[in-house]
Amino acid sequence: MPARRRIALISTGGTIEKTYDELKGVLDNRTSVLDVVLATLQLDGLELVRVPLMNKDSLEMSPQDHDLIAHTAGSMAAGHDGVIIVHGTDRLANTGERIVALLGRPRVPIVLTGAMRPYVMRNTDATQNLTEALLAVQILPPGVYVAMHNQVLAFPGVVKDREHGRFVRAEAPVARPG
Amino acid sequence: MPARRRIALISTGGTIEKTYDELKGVLDNRTSVLDVVLATLQLDGLELVRVPLMNKDSLEMSPQDHDLIAHTAGSMAAGHDGVIIVHGTDRLANTGERIVALLGRPRVPIVLTGAMRPYVMRNTDATQNLTEALLAVQILPPGVYVAMHNQVLAFPGVVKDREHGRFVRAEAPVARPG
Amino acid sequence: MPARRRIALISTGGTIEKTYDELKGVLDNRTSVLDVVLATLQLDGLELVRVPLMNKDSLEMSPQDHDLIAHTAGSMAAGHDGVIIVHGTDRLANTGERIVALLGRPRVPIVLTGAMRPYVMRNTDATQNLTEALLAVQILPPGVYVAMHNQVLAFPGVVKDREHGRFVRAEAPVARPG
Amino acid sequence: MPARRRIALISTGGTIEKTYDELKGVLDNRTSVLDVVLATLQLDGLELVRVPLMNKDSLEMSPQDHDLIAHTAGSMAAGHDGVIIVHGTDRLANTGERIVALLGRPRVPIVLTGAMRPYVMRNTDATQNLTEALLAVQILPPGVYVAMHNQVLAFPGVVKDREHGRFVRAEAPVARPG
Repeated sequence: MPARRRIALISTGGTIEKTYDELKGVLDNRTSVLDVVLATLQLDGLELVRVPLMNKDSLEMSPQDHDLIAHTAGSMAAGHDGVIIVHGTDRLANTGERIVALLGRPRVPIVLTGAMRPYVMRNTDATQNLTEALLAVQILPPGVYVAMHNQVLAFPGVVKDREHGRFVRAEAPVARPG
Repeated sequence: MPARRRIALISTGGTIEKTYDELKGVLDNRTSVLDVVLATLQLDGLELVRVPLMNKDSLEMSPQDHDLIAHTAGSMAAGHDGVIIVHGTDRLANTGERIVALLGRPRVPIVLTGAMRPYVMRNTDATQNLTEALLAVQILPPGVYVAMHNQVLAFPGVVKDREHGRFVRAEAPVARPG
Repeated sequence: MPARRRIALISTGGTIEKTYDELKGVLDNRTSVLDVVLATLQLDGLELVRVPLMNKDSLEMSPQDHDLIAHTAGSMAAGHDGVIIVHGTDRLANTGERIVALLGRPRVPIVLTGAMRPYVMRNTDATQNLTEALLAVQILPPGVYVAMHNQVLAFPGVVKDREHGRFVRAEAPVARPG
Repeated sequence: MPARRRIALISTGGTIEKTYDELKGVLDNRTSVLDVVLATLQLDGLELVRVPLMNKDSLEMSPQDHDLIAHTAGSMAAGHDGVIIVHGTDRLANTGERIVALLGRPRVPIVLTGAMRPYVMRNTDATQNLTEALLAVQILPPGVYVAMHNQVLAFPGVVKDREHGRFVRAEAPVARPG
């Protein structure tokens, strides 16, 4: 009988959680849909600890927000077999670099993910990306990663390619994490 | 600019591909739906080579079928970065053990997957399992595995737990099917 | 301010309600899914009274079952603005003819419907047919009808065309309704 | 063998057809999705003539647009068994009143419909409303109607209740837009 794997899932908001207000016709960040997505998956032997940290479009995140997420990831890494962070994609790389700068190489894998199309859209990538993060966090070696669109990249050195809506390795060394 | 990852996907049939005949009210194996599932996923930088080997309920597979799948997996492993085998779950473990018996440790990861509920069902696990196999094959070390329901197990020594509809490690050493 | 329309919905089972037992791989009639379908519809100003009468594959209905459904429809017609009967398609026409034989022309519209593909299938016709029945019952004149696949037919004189999976007018006069 | 029913479907744009641009995160009117919705329905014995007249958010419709739609509906009514108009809900009532003003009582039913939530949203009402319009146009007497959310209202005298996202009868006579 295998031990259950204990994974912490920190949610911070972003496109993946956007819903649609039919009267105003806009997308906003009022309602978490992560539990709905999780309910569609079959996660044998997994114990998922939900940490709803904030619910922000990542474009509105302050340096303090990135720090808070990084410190929370570090705390969760101490007591779990892995950590997933659901994050808006626009500033996801900032948080990834910040975790590496603050924690160095964590004790367990920390995997960031997000979505380009919210769950409420038929063609969402939220389910795929969350499925990938939930698997990657169990089989990767310790480190900080982004998992999305069938691709895993290790921090530091990851940037968002806004033109193609995906993450890529930075061509030159990334200067930012200070 | 990263090289594209080349993955071979061998399909053999099973529940994942079952469709529904409205006039007879039964499920059968006439139509492949893997391409439909794949079209719902965003696979950045992946080159997928489809190998439609057979389309059988695995309960009807002969020892020759298991051998043929194992040999085909071996051939594909020689020229690709990974191999996925979509397989009926009832005899999936037989094929997994047979690959280990014939190939030992392959050059690249070989990942078997399947589904308990066909894609045509709303609550299918086909998309989740295929997403997991497509990611696992890229980040696991060389070996033979089953990926399903957020869990990866390495052959030899895997059996289907029919009562709970999942795969588990065999409690005693598996006598490999000869 | 318009009065609310009060519609009785009698459920009797059939394909529309079939679910899928993943361990046995068969379809059966254990769970009602009508409430799930209804929850996906927006029914402004409608008051729906659910009458879960039986849950049978219509091939297993006895003459007593058809009589019971017909009498229940008659009772519900006395106190509501319309009656919908969800029914297996194989014997739906038997019940329709029986209602006409027992009630003649009812006080309000009585609309039978069903499905060729259960709701748990992605390509179900359950939602379409139920949507049609819910609208037809409000705008048709009093009578007994089947509404399905964008078509409304009035009893007596309707038969199932098993080859094409649809209802059609009987080519010769139907003898039964006395 | 029944004659096929010939129905004209005039599309003018609106929420029902809005798609989602993942890079900008906004909804716009670039792509028609009506054919996708229609492909999910089973329309036995129906011959649907598609008339893609314009593709506008109805808030941007000019008086000339309302006139053009009304005249086109009149032309189509001359040669078909019914006419459906897919329309943005904000100005749907303007077009409905304009048709009555120009055509009086048409030869066949003319049914307007639209959606509050676009088809690309999981919880869209597009499929329901189109299903309702496709059925209503076949069983209503000649006239001009809106069909939506399980409700049919006859023009003249219909207004949009913006607070509740639905159509209602005007409490006082509607001063028809000239």
